[in-house]
Amino acid sequence: MFTSEVQLRVRYADTDQMGYVYYGKYASFYEIARVEALRSIGVSYKSLEEQGIMMPVWENHSYYLQPAQFDEVLTIKVLVKEIPMAKMIFTYEIYNESFQLIHKGETVLVFMNKETRKIMRAPQMLIEILKPYF
Amino acid sequence: MFTSEVQLRVRYADTDQMGYVYYGKYASFYEIARVEALRSIGVSYKSLEEQGIMMPVWENHSYYLQPAQFDEVLTIKVLVKEIPMAKMIFTYEIYNESFQLIHKGETVLVFMNKETRKIMRAPQMLIEILKPYF
Amino acid sequence: MFTSEVQLRVRYADTDQMGYVYYGKYASFYEIARVEALRSIGVSYKSLEEQGIMMPVWENHSYYLQPAQFDEVLTIKVLVKEIPMAKMIFTYEIYNESFQLIHKGETVLVFMNKETRKIMRAPQMLIEILKPYF
Amino acid sequence: MFTSEVQLRVRYADTDQMGYVYYGKYASFYEIARVEALRSIGVSYKSLEEQGIMMPVWENHSYYLQPAQFDEVLTIKVLVKEIPMAKMIFTYEIYNESFQLIHKGETVLVFMNKETRKIMRAPQMLIEILKPYF
Repeated sequence: MFTSEVQLRVRYADTDQMGYVYYGKYASFYEIARVEALRSIGVSYKSLEEQGIMMPVWENHSYYLQPAQFDEVLTIKVLVKEIPMAKMIFTYEIYNESFQLIHKGETVLVFMNKETRKIMRAPQMLIEILKPYF
Repeated sequence: MFTSEVQLRVRYADTDQMGYVYYGKYASFYEIARVEALRSIGVSYKSLEEQGIMMPVWENHSYYLQPAQFDEVLTIKVLVKEIPMAKMIFTYEIYNESFQLIHKGETVLVFMNKETRKIMRAPQMLIEILKPYF
Repeated sequence: MFTSEVQLRVRYADTDQMGYVYYGKYASFYEIARVEALRSIGVSYKSLEEQGIMMPVWENHSYYLQPAQFDEVLTIKVLVKEIPMAKMIFTYEIYNESFQLIHKGETVLVFMNKETRKIMRAPQMLIEILKPYF
Repeated sequence: MFTSEVQLRVRYADTDQMGYVYYGKYASFYEIARVEALRSIGVSYKSLEEQGIMMPVWENHSYYLQPAQFDEVLTIKVLVKEIPMAKMIFTYEIYNESFQLIHKGETVLVFMNKETRKIMRAPQMLIEILKPYF
């Protein structure tokens, strides 16, 4: 299993009039966590796209256990539990400053050829880099 | 079953550099669909909050079948398949201008007392209004 | 002078914990107003981009007179006071449901060749369509 | 003059289909810069609100010199050139990784009593903390 961790601070723009983080903002938190998880093993998502590989989202699942609030520093733990083949699954656990698990999520991404916009298999380079973790 | 339908046009702000609607934007599309679905049966979500009842999201699930693009008019079909008790489940089907199903989603909301921030049962008024559909 | 009007309803996603529309959301309101203003004279911004002409923003100015709130239907009046040459200036007045002017804005856009990403003059087609208004 | 600096990485969610940061996103970049500038002198905007003082935005001005792109680390320099009295003015300069100035901005904020929602003068505490810089 490959795991990674990233921290981010809740912005005022993330809140809604309930006084909590808007439920639609978590998707962008996941995105940051994925991008940083890949960067931590030397994979730049930006470079992937420049090499013609896009990773559109196929499924997204969110479980809101406790609300997050403005100015809190959240810790997002990212888990990749399987070597990516046709798709890559990221699982997230979000903790608040009191180390409480406040949110869980899961995103299924596929690999797509940027030119043809056809689904493809995971690039061999990514598989090689991830292999030692499994 | 209670169903409703709403249309919205994709904004430039909704797109990302992939040239499609950013995956995190669908949550706000669902929100519009829910609010309009409730309005169609005479329930104003704004008034609910003013009466002290908030509906925070408990779970959210998204299935991205085909991408949506800038300036497209999307039709969102909303389905409520069960009378709300402790929670209320909205299911969505999003169609593009060619009547293709491009996206499916589901949101589970709970009812919360705005003052105490405690979970509560669905307000009796809402149950009464929805009853005839089931 | 060319003027146009569009209405939009404030989304929950637009609010922040102050209970008003987040100040950064007005830029997307302006965008909708511009796109619909152009559509009202038969110009599709989407088609412009497909023809290789992009209109990036050069300057943006916002004046927040009164807050906007969730679920309000806002009326955005758009004014184009000069024939576009090197740049196109859109001025906005936003009114709430009580016809109060609550916000003013102005956006300066330029024309850019999508391939070369070089600044260009306004397309002749757009100038011709706008001429009768001046 | 009081100055401060903050860095942030452009998120995928910040981009639009032009391949650059959407023009409406800079407002949230400014917000982060303001909040961190205040934190750097021991003022928590969150605490200000908890003490009943809100700082709504009165005016916002943006100058887009060069586009910002996904994954870039931007440096935002914040300048406060006058002691706040009835209003507080933040000026921003945004630099890309090549130290090029790509964006300028200015936000005028006022102070508001959270309960009465009436405009008030800058809190004495904030004036005292800022005095040594002027």
